[in-house]
Amino acid sequence: MRFTISAAKPEDCKDIERMIMELAVYENMPDQVKISHKELERDGFGPNPFYHCLVAEVPEEHKSKDGNTTVGYVIFFYTYSTWKGRTVYMEDLYVMPEFRGNGIGKALLGAVAKEAKDQLCSRLQFSVLDWNKPSLYFYMAKGAEDLTAKEGWHFLRFHGMALDNLAQEAP
Amino acid sequence: MRFTISAAKPEDCKDIERMIMELAVYENMPDQVKISHKELERDGFGPNPFYHCLVAEVPEEHKSKDGNTTVGYVIFFYTYSTWKGRTVYMEDLYVMPEFRGNGIGKALLGAVAKEAKDQLCSRLQFSVLDWNKPSLYFYMAKGAEDLTAKEGWHFLRFHGMALDNLAQEAP
Repeated sequence: MRFTISAAKPEDCKDIERMIMELAVYENMPDQVKISHKELERDGFGPNPFYHCLVAEVPEEHKSKDGNTTVGYVIFFYTYSTWKGRTVYMEDLYVMPEFRGNGIGKALLGAVAKEAKDQLCSRLQFSVLDWNKPSLYFYMAKGAEDLTAKEGWHFLRFHGMALDNLAQEAP
Repeated sequence: MRFTISAAKPEDCKDIERMIMELAVYENMPDQVKISHKELERDGFGPNPFYHCLVAEVPEEHKSKDGNTTVGYVIFFYTYSTWKGRTVYMEDLYVMPEFRGNGIGKALLGAVAKEAKDQLCSRLQFSVLDWNKPSLYFYMAKGAEDLTAKEGWHFLRFHGMALDNLAQEAP
């Protein structure tokens, strides 16, 4: 199946919002999504965007059963390692189930890796749920290292009241 | 002990480089550090900085046994959650051992939390090595959640040849 990968435009945000929700349903956490296309537009398309997004599109004749031609996306941003310098963090990579097996996921992942190299990044990092074996196998087969398993890195978060309390300790 | 917290300036990069190495030695991975003050200057002080840094300084009369007055730092950057929007990721938080117990770490952490709130971020995230119990207890006591333990998030990475190979799959 033919498809194209290109930088998302503000008008893609409704499709991105739809697919973010589809991915959250797959991850069994749909109630976690508190974002809409309005915040996606505001945060991704200003002078200092908080994220970058690529979308995968298929021609009209291959549209989904619900009439969609934007069938996959990847969201990433630049982060920084104090050991290795510039890195890319991939927040989401998603292809609609009915379009899988056509190389779209591989192409989106490849496009992010190319952006990483172009920006002099030495690493492409991301997080995967440990029960999500299909995704883990896909990434490990391509040479990803599991740093939680190998080095013992745990991922921590402050939010809600805990974050508010911390902010009050600012000098 | 009196101290001040302020935004790092380019001329602080040599001190930051020194403390990055001290932290890596504590984490038993000093050979992982491949960065110097030159890259830190280039990447942190351009028009679109890859990171932000705050430094803690003590007055001259409290200088360290090696003569340093810059005794702690925190490096962070803005990331993005497709579920919750803007977030802050804290890459490093460090206070020199001889200056611990004076509230400098708390003040640096609080200052980052305040930046997060000011920038409309709902989360402050970071990674900790599972054997680093003093740090884990410090953060958990302040209300941090361990997402690796709670939800099963593993942290993955492509680098070296694996990243090069991926980039060649870009469409």
